Amino acid sequence: MVAATEIIDSSEQLATELVSIVGADAVLTETETLRPFECDGLTAYRELPLMVVLPSSISQVQDVMKACSNRKVPVVTRGAGTGLSGGALPLPNGVLLSLTRMNDILEVDVAARTARVQPGVTNLSISDAVRHLGFYYAPDPSSQIACSIGGNVAENSGGVHCLKYGLTVHNILQLKVVTVDGQLMTVGSEGLDSPGFDLLALMTGSEGMLGVVVEVLVKLLPIPPVAQVVMAAFDRVENAGDAVAAVIGAGILPAGLEMMDNYAISAVEDFVHAGYPVDAAAILLCELDGTAEEVADQIGEVEEIFRTQGAMGTWVAEDAETRDRFWSGRKAAFPAVGRISPDYYCIDGTIPRRELGRVLVRTAELSKEFGLRVANVFHAGDGNLHPLILYDANNEGELEKTEELGNQILELCVEVGGTVTGEHGVGVEKLRPMCLQFEDAVLEQFHQVKAALDPDTLLNPGKAVPTLARCAEFGAMHVHKGNLPHSNLERF
Amino acid sequence: MVAATEIIDSSEQLATELVSIVGADAVLTETETLRPFECDGLTAYRELPLMVVLPSSISQVQDVMKACSNRKVPVVTRGAGTGLSGGALPLPNGVLLSLTRMNDILEVDVAARTARVQPGVTNLSISDAVRHLGFYYAPDPSSQIACSIGGNVAENSGGVHCLKYGLTVHNILQLKVVTVDGQLMTVGSEGLDSPGFDLLALMTGSEGMLGVVVEVLVKLLPIPPVAQVVMAAFDRVENAGDAVAAVIGAGILPAGLEMMDNYAISAVEDFVHAGYPVDAAAILLCELDGTAEEVADQIGEVEEIFRTQGAMGTWVAEDAETRDRFWSGRKAAFPAVGRISPDYYCIDGTIPRRELGRVLVRTAELSKEFGLRVANVFHAGDGNLHPLILYDANNEGELEKTEELGNQILELCVEVGGTVTGEHGVGVEKLRPMCLQFEDAVLEQFHQVKAALDPDTLLNPGKAVPTLARCAEFGAMHVHKGNLPHSNLERF
Repeated sequence: MVAATEIIDSSEQLATELVSIVGADAVLTETETLRPFECDGLTAYRELPLMVVLPSSISQVQDVMKACSNRKVPVVTRGAGTGLSGGALPLPNGVLLSLTRMNDILEVDVAARTARVQPGVTNLSISDAVRHLGFYYAPDPSSQIACSIGGNVAENSGGVHCLKYGLTVHNILQLKVVTVDGQLMTVGSEGLDSPGFDLLALMTGSEGMLGVVVEVLVKLLPIPPVAQVVMAAFDRVENAGDAVAAVIGAGILPAGLEMMDNYAISAVEDFVHAGYPVDAAAILLCELDGTAEEVADQIGEVEEIFRTQGAMGTWVAEDAETRDRFWSGRKAAFPAVGRISPDYYCIDGTIPRRELGRVLVRTAELSKEFGLRVANVFHAGDGNLHPLILYDANNEGELEKTEELGNQILELCVEVGGTVTGEHGVGVEKLRPMCLQFEDAVLEQFHQVKAALDPDTLLNPGKAVPTLARCAEFGAMHVHKGNLPHSNLERF
Repeated sequence: MVAATEIIDSSEQLATELVSIVGADAVLTETETLRPFECDGLTAYRELPLMVVLPSSISQVQDVMKACSNRKVPVVTRGAGTGLSGGALPLPNGVLLSLTRMNDILEVDVAARTARVQPGVTNLSISDAVRHLGFYYAPDPSSQIACSIGGNVAENSGGVHCLKYGLTVHNILQLKVVTVDGQLMTVGSEGLDSPGFDLLALMTGSEGMLGVVVEVLVKLLPIPPVAQVVMAAFDRVENAGDAVAAVIGAGILPAGLEMMDNYAISAVEDFVHAGYPVDAAAILLCELDGTAEEVADQIGEVEEIFRTQGAMGTWVAEDAETRDRFWSGRKAAFPAVGRISPDYYCIDGTIPRRELGRVLVRTAELSKEFGLRVANVFHAGDGNLHPLILYDANNEGELEKTEELGNQILELCVEVGGTVTGEHGVGVEKLRPMCLQFEDAVLEQFHQVKAALDPDTLLNPGKAVPTLARCAEFGAMHVHKGNLPHSNLERF
């Protein structure tokens, strides 16, 4: 048992040491300065950290990690704080390491088609910096104006265009990583491959649990000459799902292939008037990019497939204005749903494309059983579902019912061969479904990898991978969103 | 000290146990039956294994691993044995686990664009099986007619088309893996991403040191409608190198971009009469694929860039026959060089594209300094060099000189920001340059990962990742190719 005064003393000593590394303006300890860091995009979970430290250089990060490691103080690394699964939720006894001050684009190399950037650089600012050269950075999470590339690496972020261009892991070449004990290492390479174990991929998507990413070498892609969108309306959701599988099965690789159901369409039309057919059970938005001829050919093929699969109608955006209008509805879908319900809960799961129709039908059945409306807006092309459960937190027990419905939808995803998260990460939110997802052998290997790279469990403990004991507990225990007692945030 | 009779006894007991698992026809112990397994494609290293076991099912692999784990017997997994770095070199005290009998294509799913295959299936037979559906499997190592997909996963194989379509890790979705203690686990998913740490990527390229791959879910790609080749000749090697960087920098992504220097051109012309300009210092072969219009546009752009960069001439293969003839020379380059020199040693390293010209000039200087001819035939587009050092093993000391030149070329690759292997793996061949490649912090992390997943070091020990002690030794020790004493094949 450690006395409270000892904790305070040791916390003051740590603060003093950190100030000596990063300067007084880069260590926050007062409650009002800590408040902005108490949660990420999963606002239902909140916790004040012991302190926040804001390093400006790699060597400062190394020294901070050495100081924390020596004192066995846990560290939660935070990018822009836009994550949706609580991956950057602070620990009351831990340091929150914010990398927002490391936000420079260090180098752009056109011949190598790469940009070397610091972790705090926002996703969109990379594309902005190279647009005049004819290039862009492909992964485009919907938070791209705000989210940082370091956070993208931590969560292996995707976006509308990851169907054709891959996730973050497919769009980076090299990382500089500070280990838990402050060593700097370079993983990956400027070449096409790197020998040894693939630590680059291991770090990517590891939610800050294996190291601190302090520099990223991203790949740049040439901006395609033409991008065009075709929209199709269906009177049955299953037909829309089957049409998605048919497009991909025909050998067409759209830049994006998105689906919205009637709840979402109506909400959007009331909000932004995108010109969607409000009587449709579902619409698909399919973007094709490439040369003018290639795009024209493929638009024709896609329209033909949509009609064969029972589309009530198809519309091609002939000009940029119409294309932007079509996309504006998709982009406004979440806030639009926010207007028709006091609260909503966004689920994130993936399924094999061939199961789209079946899973949507079953989701509608579950929605009825639970008496909760579910709107669907999602990346259909890569089977990444985002059911939005509409509820009212003021109604007694409705949040719990919502969570249970969410869990059942994720169970359904696992049942058909999918996963419990497509692009939002596990964080603290998805610990329970992780137990559904993985057999013990895999969870054990996760833990062995974690123990190998972070033996004292100081890097973001309690996130992303549940212990086997925790999974056993979940069998009997219901986790209340926003009400997870910290005694349950088991040390990894 | 264990008496020889004890070893024999325990070896006989192991053989008996393995026979009870896989049957008598699937356990080989006689010297003449072991002989075909004594080496892989790196024939300079040879060793007879204790025994060879040939399982036919996943559950047999699990039981074999349990038996070996219980007895602490090391296991080297082998696919088709076409590897070029000795990754499948047997251990005299270990079991060689050959997966050639597990060679079925289990399922093709067009809507998901995937094929589920056993590890012993050859690379090319996957494309053969789906060609009538309009699909193919993209990675194409030059051994694709013989090499197995399990071996491709172990080495993260590439090929001519990996410039555009990526390495093995980019073309697989899911693996079934048997752990060292015989547990079966599924890593990756049918969806676009899998939560938890990226064990799929960690296993890929790990050279059989972290688990045994027993099933692979590969991605299939649509066969492009048109593929065309343009050849360019240069009178200076540097110009050819710069032209490669210029093509990529212009935003063009060729399906393949290969380079050959004058030694290689002359050797090829004498052998297969591909129609190459024998007076050129270097030629480039650039393949573009896509729709007819896209390809025509890009061929024009590439020709323009080649001329701007000083090409003496460019030739477009207007028909399939000419295209095949252009490629025939590239494909025959290694045997062609084999005709002009008693022996040759193929080096495999990568460099950033912008360094191509500089590294080729420096390689030519080194060639002069060592008095050894070097022919260059390589994947220029992704900076993957394959210098072929020509030598005569019958000349006293020439092999050692060749190895030293090879090492210096690899050092040069590391110096300019590249890697010591592009696609051939580390195996036993590249242990020394691995010490050049990686700082201690990274090597330590490799060892921690290895220890986490294989605590008793039973999976392919002594390959791929040198110990720090081993690296220290290399400072003073020269490894004689083909003559590496087993006492030095340090247990991982």
